[in-house]
Amino acid sequence: MTRNPTDDSAAQVSREQALTDEVVARFAASPDERLRVITQSLTRHLHAFVRDVRLTTEEWDAAIDFLTRVGHITDDKRQEFILLSDVLGVSMMTVGVNSPLQADATESTVFGPFFVDGSPAARNGDDIGASVAGMPCFVKGTVTDTSGAPIAGARIEVWAADEAGFYDVQYDGDELAGRAHLHSDDTGAYWFWTKQPSAYPIPHDGPVGDLLTATGRHPWRPAHIHFMVQNPGFSTLITHIFVAGDQWLEDDAVFGVKESLIVDFVQHDAGTPAPDGRNIGGGPWSEAVFNIVLAAQ
Amino acid sequence: MTRNPTDDSAAQVSREQALTDEVVARFAASPDERLRVITQSLTRHLHAFVRDVRLTTEEWDAAIDFLTRVGHITDDKRQEFILLSDVLGVSMMTVGVNSPLQADATESTVFGPFFVDGSPAARNGDDIGASVAGMPCFVKGTVTDTSGAPIAGARIEVWAADEAGFYDVQYDGDELAGRAHLHSDDTGAYWFWTKQPSAYPIPHDGPVGDLLTATGRHPWRPAHIHFMVQNPGFSTLITHIFVAGDQWLEDDAVFGVKESLIVDFVQHDAGTPAPDGRNIGGGPWSEAVFNIVLAAQ
Repeated sequence: MTRNPTDDSAAQVSREQALTDEVVARFAASPDERLRVITQSLTRHLHAFVRDVRLTTEEWDAAIDFLTRVGHITDDKRQEFILLSDVLGVSMMTVGVNSPLQADATESTVFGPFFVDGSPAARNGDDIGASVAGMPCFVKGTVTDTSGAPIAGARIEVWAADEAGFYDVQYDGDELAGRAHLHSDDTGAYWFWTKQPSAYPIPHDGPVGDLLTATGRHPWRPAHIHFMVQNPGFSTLITHIFVAGDQWLEDDAVFGVKESLIVDFVQHDAGTPAPDGRNIGGGPWSEAVFNIVLAAQ
Repeated sequence: MTRNPTDDSAAQVSREQALTDEVVARFAASPDERLRVITQSLTRHLHAFVRDVRLTTEEWDAAIDFLTRVGHITDDKRQEFILLSDVLGVSMMTVGVNSPLQADATESTVFGPFFVDGSPAARNGDDIGASVAGMPCFVKGTVTDTSGAPIAGARIEVWAADEAGFYDVQYDGDELAGRAHLHSDDTGAYWFWTKQPSAYPIPHDGPVGDLLTATGRHPWRPAHIHFMVQNPGFSTLITHIFVAGDQWLEDDAVFGVKESLIVDFVQHDAGTPAPDGRNIGGGPWSEAVFNIVLAAQ
């Protein structure tokens, strides 16, 4: 059994680099060229991280345990890996590197963990927040291309939290609420009722919450409504509108705020008639305008 | 709603860097200084990865799905996150950055996913592979410090695969086999019987196996026996011995081989008496010597 040579700094650096080179070389034969690029880059960056911080064995153990907890809390209704990507800004960086493709179009932001397939179909004017607690909120706008031409029949998926800051999927039971999909009309217009969204903390009773606490970070997101807008021939737009004036706009836990996505939710006094004549109970209500511009593919 | 400015390269680079800076700044208030260093470095490296490969939204989705699968296949007996760390060389890099601390001592290698707490206690001379299929194998050596002084009573944990390449925990049922812990005697010596280990593929019926297949990599590891050696006042040694001549020594799926850890497993013909007089059934058997040098803490 030979023993380690006495380490000096140059020998150690060389030995570490040799390992990175060996792993990178092992991915070189990937039949999928794009996967080769991704796995080789991931290898280089993860190795550089371990080298930079001189990760200890105990810290590696802790990382494995942390990821295991993230995996085990993740299920059909809770996506802790997305939360982790979100709080590390990896989700927003992914949005960011793709946004040059969408210049002149409405900006994107994070997808978030609360989208679910199979939302109810709605028509323009419907109240998609009928069973949701909160102040009635009328949202309207147009869908156009970057030349301003209306896009008829665009599919608009909407989801938002209630006034307590929870999404439908965070409650027991399977009722979907505060989410729906509808389509722009022949003039590109869309409109619907929902409830005014509230700021909320991202789920922080799991490992990602523990990470935020351990690093002195808060879990709050400013109030927002999620949109996903799709039409053949155009890039899918995944974004939010944020409520202007929210206290967390400068400090979103997941770094999702963009100036262009902050919208005035104009509040109307109790008794003000609804623009579409709907009976909204006589209390105060709010109104937001969000004109959506899709980028051609 | 304002729109994206027309992107030019400098503006885009600046915008991406600003996001990294914002996330790094958010970790600056971490009350745990070490966790600040780690999370800020991880943020920088993960962001650089996303920027370097220009990760698409679909690839981010695929990464979330992949990690979710890794999390869901992981349980008490299967640790897919360790496999993932292993095949990316992250485990060996962690071993590598810690090994300068152990100069002159026996080299370390990966921990692997098959350690379990609660192995049976054994005495020197015991057969820890009695219920394991394979050729009898006698392993002996000494535990010393770096000056060559014997270390009595060092705890030696051993685990290995059977001749089919499987560990006990990969079979149905809860029987532990081919693993035990014993202690060096007053002269620092230890010795035990087990079965000659075989090369084997790491578990590749899960997402890590899919990754290997998609990147044109094989899952094989050269035959080895795992050791974890502990004694108060010394750094815990986590290592293997590898069987000299194995076809996978130059191409270990998890990059764990170090020259100093390759050991001759000398094969003895049928009928050769065992060194300790044990009745080993009259067939061929092998013998390996592994002298262990622990680094003082």
